Amino acid sequence: MKSSFKSSFYPYILSLQDQICQAIEQEDGSAKFHEDLWERPEGGGGRSRVIAEGAVFEKGGVNISAVHGALPTSMQQYFGVEEADFYATGISLVLHPKNPFVPTVHANFRYFELYNSQGNIEKQWFGGGLDLTPYYIFPEDVTHFHTICKKACDAHHPEFYATYKKRCDEYFWNSHRNEARGVGGLFFDYLQANENQTMNDWYAFVTGVGDQFIQAYLPIVSKRKNTAYTSSHRNWQEIRRGRYVEFNLVHDKGTLFGLKTNGRIESILMSLPPQVQWRYDHQVAENSPEALLVETLKNPKDWI
Amino acid sequence: MKSSFKSSFYPYILSLQDQICQAIEQEDGSAKFHEDLWERPEGGGGRSRVIAEGAVFEKGGVNISAVHGALPTSMQQYFGVEEADFYATGISLVLHPKNPFVPTVHANFRYFELYNSQGNIEKQWFGGGLDLTPYYIFPEDVTHFHTICKKACDAHHPEFYATYKKRCDEYFWNSHRNEARGVGGLFFDYLQANENQTMNDWYAFVTGVGDQFIQAYLPIVSKRKNTAYTSSHRNWQEIRRGRYVEFNLVHDKGTLFGLKTNGRIESILMSLPPQVQWRYDHQVAENSPEALLVETLKNPKDWI
Repeated sequence: MKSSFKSSFYPYILSLQDQICQAIEQEDGSAKFHEDLWERPEGGGGRSRVIAEGAVFEKGGVNISAVHGALPTSMQQYFGVEEADFYATGISLVLHPKNPFVPTVHANFRYFELYNSQGNIEKQWFGGGLDLTPYYIFPEDVTHFHTICKKACDAHHPEFYATYKKRCDEYFWNSHRNEARGVGGLFFDYLQANENQTMNDWYAFVTGVGDQFIQAYLPIVSKRKNTAYTSSHRNWQEIRRGRYVEFNLVHDKGTLFGLKTNGRIESILMSLPPQVQWRYDHQVAENSPEALLVETLKNPKDWI
Repeated sequence: MKSSFKSSFYPYILSLQDQICQAIEQEDGSAKFHEDLWERPEGGGGRSRVIAEGAVFEKGGVNISAVHGALPTSMQQYFGVEEADFYATGISLVLHPKNPFVPTVHANFRYFELYNSQGNIEKQWFGGGLDLTPYYIFPEDVTHFHTICKKACDAHHPEFYATYKKRCDEYFWNSHRNEARGVGGLFFDYLQANENQTMNDWYAFVTGVGDQFIQAYLPIVSKRKNTAYTSSHRNWQEIRRGRYVEFNLVHDKGTLFGLKTNGRIESILMSLPPQVQWRYDHQVAENSPEALLVETLKNPKDWI
């Protein structure tokens, strides 16, 4: 019989939410997170924490939830299973900095259980990752982010970084624009026990990556948050944020899933940027920093 | 053998595009449309006209296209047919005014032909409609818009207005927000010859509605475009524009269809508003004009 990771992973994300929120407030120096506790009528609930109009962070959310009950019909089709009970818990965060030279970041770490009719665990898996979306490319920043990702992976398996870096590039692909949402990071899903990894191994891996989030992102924020910028940089950031919205609303499985299964809308859409622009057929100047970003996103590359 | 409406409907939309663009430029008094001609590699092309940063219109597009060739695989599934050639032509417009008291408007009139292996028309239909998305409710404006819609319908059938007004409310429903995108208008699709209407009847109906677009919308623009507004009104408009984006990217069949069938991205996404905001869990003050809008959108009603 499979044993549950509820009692280890849920406390882990509770604590990770606290650590991340504290580190972000400290980096911001001005704004504080606003907390909303919510309950899901069908079972479970969450703790949403949102920061807005900070000195550094224009908008961001660090949410955790633990929900359970009967698997919604739409999720049955999605997972290819019959009627079943489920339990899902995770942390999900998106931070939109004000300064266009500071990248947006997203991270998510989650655990899922599906039960058989006897109430025993039929399937269980971990998933998650973290990825960076800059508006201007500073190669050393991207390399820093990926280096931390690789270190977190290498502690568990020499091939994990290459594998999950590639999956990240594939997943966050804005196919209708033929470009990546950002410069990637790690993406993994359906991490189940197999001949090489036990669930304990996956637990160690996922929490090991989660533990590195602050170190992967905040040094970049710290380095760029005081860089002077003009309204032209800001316009570019807002235009690019439009692509972020397009990805999340058109392609992101998690978002669409939440929207179509009656999730808590405000928690799901906290990922959307605060101020966004769409201009018709916007073009970048040749050899400009803006052109470099676009070129970089069209051809995902190795950063280490 | 069915006869084609290519030679009548295409010239009609060419002329309608000219009339509408001229009327809009006149109403704006400052900005002019920028025209892009584009070709579709697989057959056909279009004439996109976009207006930006006008005195009245912050962003808008009035596009026509006529495309043909082999029906893309994704469209075969969509229409429930096998391999076939097709022809599709139409006009599509969205106008986002600067002043929050002037509503956004959308209209679309289209014609479709599917051919059998002998190259004869197997199926043909018209579709389209027009709908209004205000940020503040002036009941007399909404009633004016619906009255013109009803007149255009009543000239053809006493039940058309009620039928297509209802379809419009149903189609432009932002289900994840449990509210309508706007205050509706008309929406019709797959208008095919039946025992009561010939294709000539539908042609007369669809062009009859198209002819009333200017009269339905521009008097409202004219009446409200000089109303003074504050940054608070403007914020509300930008927040509500977020709902417009959500509808178009999450629910609108035409948009998703274009994005997933390699359509011309800039023409498809010209519908997105120029400046948009997302705030976490934004609430409106009780009994405010903003609350009246939300209340109105949650319960579609009769305006005549």
